[in-house]
Amino acid sequence: MFKKLGAEFIGTFWLVLGGCGSAVLAAGVADVGIGWLGVSFAFGLTVLTMAYAVGHISGGHFNPAVSLGLMMAGKFEAKDLIPYWVAQVAGAIVAAIVLYVIVSGAPDFAGVGGFASNGYGEASPGGYSMMSALVIEIVLTAAFLFIILGATSAGAPPGFAPIAIGLGLTLIHLISIPVTNTSVNPARSTGVALFADGPALTQLWLFWVAPLVGGAAGGILWKIFGSDD
Amino acid sequence: MFKKLGAEFIGTFWLVLGGCGSAVLAAGVADVGIGWLGVSFAFGLTVLTMAYAVGHISGGHFNPAVSLGLMMAGKFEAKDLIPYWVAQVAGAIVAAIVLYVIVSGAPDFAGVGGFASNGYGEASPGGYSMMSALVIEIVLTAAFLFIILGATSAGAPPGFAPIAIGLGLTLIHLISIPVTNTSVNPARSTGVALFADGPALTQLWLFWVAPLVGGAAGGILWKIFGSDD
Amino acid sequence: MFKKLGAEFIGTFWLVLGGCGSAVLAAGVADVGIGWLGVSFAFGLTVLTMAYAVGHISGGHFNPAVSLGLMMAGKFEAKDLIPYWVAQVAGAIVAAIVLYVIVSGAPDFAGVGGFASNGYGEASPGGYSMMSALVIEIVLTAAFLFIILGATSAGAPPGFAPIAIGLGLTLIHLISIPVTNTSVNPARSTGVALFADGPALTQLWLFWVAPLVGGAAGGILWKIFGSDD
Amino acid sequence: MFKKLGAEFIGTFWLVLGGCGSAVLAAGVADVGIGWLGVSFAFGLTVLTMAYAVGHISGGHFNPAVSLGLMMAGKFEAKDLIPYWVAQVAGAIVAAIVLYVIVSGAPDFAGVGGFASNGYGEASPGGYSMMSALVIEIVLTAAFLFIILGATSAGAPPGFAPIAIGLGLTLIHLISIPVTNTSVNPARSTGVALFADGPALTQLWLFWVAPLVGGAAGGILWKIFGSDD
Repeated sequence: MFKKLGAEFIGTFWLVLGGCGSAVLAAGVADVGIGWLGVSFAFGLTVLTMAYAVGHISGGHFNPAVSLGLMMAGKFEAKDLIPYWVAQVAGAIVAAIVLYVIVSGAPDFAGVGGFASNGYGEASPGGYSMMSALVIEIVLTAAFLFIILGATSAGAPPGFAPIAIGLGLTLIHLISIPVTNTSVNPARSTGVALFADGPALTQLWLFWVAPLVGGAAGGILWKIFGSDD
Repeated sequence: MFKKLGAEFIGTFWLVLGGCGSAVLAAGVADVGIGWLGVSFAFGLTVLTMAYAVGHISGGHFNPAVSLGLMMAGKFEAKDLIPYWVAQVAGAIVAAIVLYVIVSGAPDFAGVGGFASNGYGEASPGGYSMMSALVIEIVLTAAFLFIILGATSAGAPPGFAPIAIGLGLTLIHLISIPVTNTSVNPARSTGVALFADGPALTQLWLFWVAPLVGGAAGGILWKIFGSDD
Repeated sequence: MFKKLGAEFIGTFWLVLGGCGSAVLAAGVADVGIGWLGVSFAFGLTVLTMAYAVGHISGGHFNPAVSLGLMMAGKFEAKDLIPYWVAQVAGAIVAAIVLYVIVSGAPDFAGVGGFASNGYGEASPGGYSMMSALVIEIVLTAAFLFIILGATSAGAPPGFAPIAIGLGLTLIHLISIPVTNTSVNPARSTGVALFADGPALTQLWLFWVAPLVGGAAGGILWKIFGSDD
Repeated sequence: MFKKLGAEFIGTFWLVLGGCGSAVLAAGVADVGIGWLGVSFAFGLTVLTMAYAVGHISGGHFNPAVSLGLMMAGKFEAKDLIPYWVAQVAGAIVAAIVLYVIVSGAPDFAGVGGFASNGYGEASPGGYSMMSALVIEIVLTAAFLFIILGATSAGAPPGFAPIAIGLGLTLIHLISIPVTNTSVNPARSTGVALFADGPALTQLWLFWVAPLVGGAAGGILWKIFGSDD
């Protein structure tokens, strides 16, 4: 269990440092910046890389909504849920601290700003409503779980799941950064919300509720429509 | 059959929500928008992810032209063609509805505009003629089927087909978004055409005829030039 | 042999239609255009997709310099070299014709311009000299052959070679589009040179000489430094 | 050993020619330039391609910090460390020379400028401090080694490691180009520093110290948290 929780801590640390780090440091730079396309690849590649590195140790969740969805589908034990959640949130917070230290060395540093936090309404990149945010976070997290469960099922070709899952997270970001800055992961939202300026903390509830609802729904959806071989 | 049609419904839902959703929400945003390159990856990754998730259940078509082409090559039973088409179109329409709900939460919402629909002439992103649209949709759908049949044939390395097919769809978008906004998939065209402003519905015939002709041609091409091991 | 030559014809057709097509149609469009990054992915994905589709039929060369390099390394029979070259050049020319038909349907069509042809000096995208062009085409083609031979050698993991080779071609374009518009493939250069405005035909010699020299050098390099298991 | 050192020389040559070459030649071109996103893919694809080509010969390090980290984890013999380092640095220097020859053929050539060298403070792309540079290079190199060790461990699916490692290097560049221009590789930093204008040589110490410290830390981290199956 020690190694499992360590793997979840390191993997979620990497997800937040890589995904939110690329967004904060490199997305908006003029001319050569990586844009939302680069941020989408960064988030996806954090999961692809760590799923190959430690997926065989902890399952490679790095996300409380994933752990819940796998539990709903009968692929993860309920007694391990809270320890996994604690390790994931801890990894996300430590990543936010490391990112804070790096960002504070910018020549014109005057606070972290949004710090890649998630939001709706005034805090949505495109100003989308709370209803849009709820719908998109629930639907995308459900699809994410469906992909995870399908790509790791007995009928799928072995070894490829980290590619499908990681690039699935890239796809999810390509769709939804304009709406919520993309969460589908309560730990990722929590880590940066603690440091961000703006309403990130007061809006954090949505980025627990919607991914968890979506994750559970995705797990159930797979039990209905998925193969049981 | 219930699970097969469910898989086709969900996969085509994902293709339209992810591909058209990224186009509508994220492509044209100033500075950090994902552009046509991001949209191309989004479409391709919808197929890559769902082919790993449910390819072993339904074959992972998500596209009436693919189902037809596989039938022409003798890899899919004729009696299943219409049920597959119905599930695919239904999934595409439901995705368009969900996308409509999300988009309607934009702060300046005043209609969905083109809604990532396909078109030619005045409705082509680059103003290309109906002839250009017919040629490119037929040729690219034929090549798509050729890749699908080759990558899933007995001689190809097992497990990699979703990568070849998904990134093949990315490639197809990199070529043809300027000409028709890229269909090669009548279900994808139909789902958004029902809601789009402009001539999407009156031009929809082309995005059934050309992909189906191309898909059938690709299936026959494989029977002639492909390996039959 | 009929199926082998058919596969080489179709694969090279796809390389030129996809790579040069994306460059001509989609690269330079304002705001949402795919840029050289998109063109680089397009070229690479043509090879990735067709290598999975027909690599087990013809070996998946799609390039006279690759056929020569493999022959130098003892992996391809000399008697098949000229037939392969003919099929490859024919596929490239037919692709250029199809692309010409599509492009001629643009609303403001007034000739194909550079048509994604290769060049140096005045015809180099960045104005690079003939010497720069020779050096970069030789070195990159040699590295390309080295990667092809290594990734398909007995010691490499089976099945992954199309990913390494296809994305290797993407990488080569990321480096060298500014210098020569990237050839490393005499067939690709020939197909579009026949239709392009400007000095493409008078400069075509370099895009046969340099890739063939580089391809042969890469084949020899592998025999020296590569593993012979 | 001759073939191993040859493979490390060629692989590191390719890393510097491809990664730094794309940065110098193609990143900053107006409108169609590849930007930092393209450079990030270029660096990652150099490793992905050469790891498939020669990973089975030399292990595919191409980086003194990787060799050290693998040694700390007990996966590489100490007696081979210095020969590997020499081959890696030699490959990087020869790549810088070839790149210099190509760049000198530009029409307006007046020196190589930064030449994709690494730096902090005034020489950081975003002006980040020495402390930010130290933290990010140490943390990212440690994570890189953790991924390498995990993806090549007995529990990970065989054959996929070059994808995880190569795209892991892409991810690392997506995060850190703004801070240090991304090293995590002392050989890569040394090759171009010898030719660059500016303070690259006087700042070179940091790009040996930080990656080596991080690489060693990553190796130790894996021994603690990684699986030992």
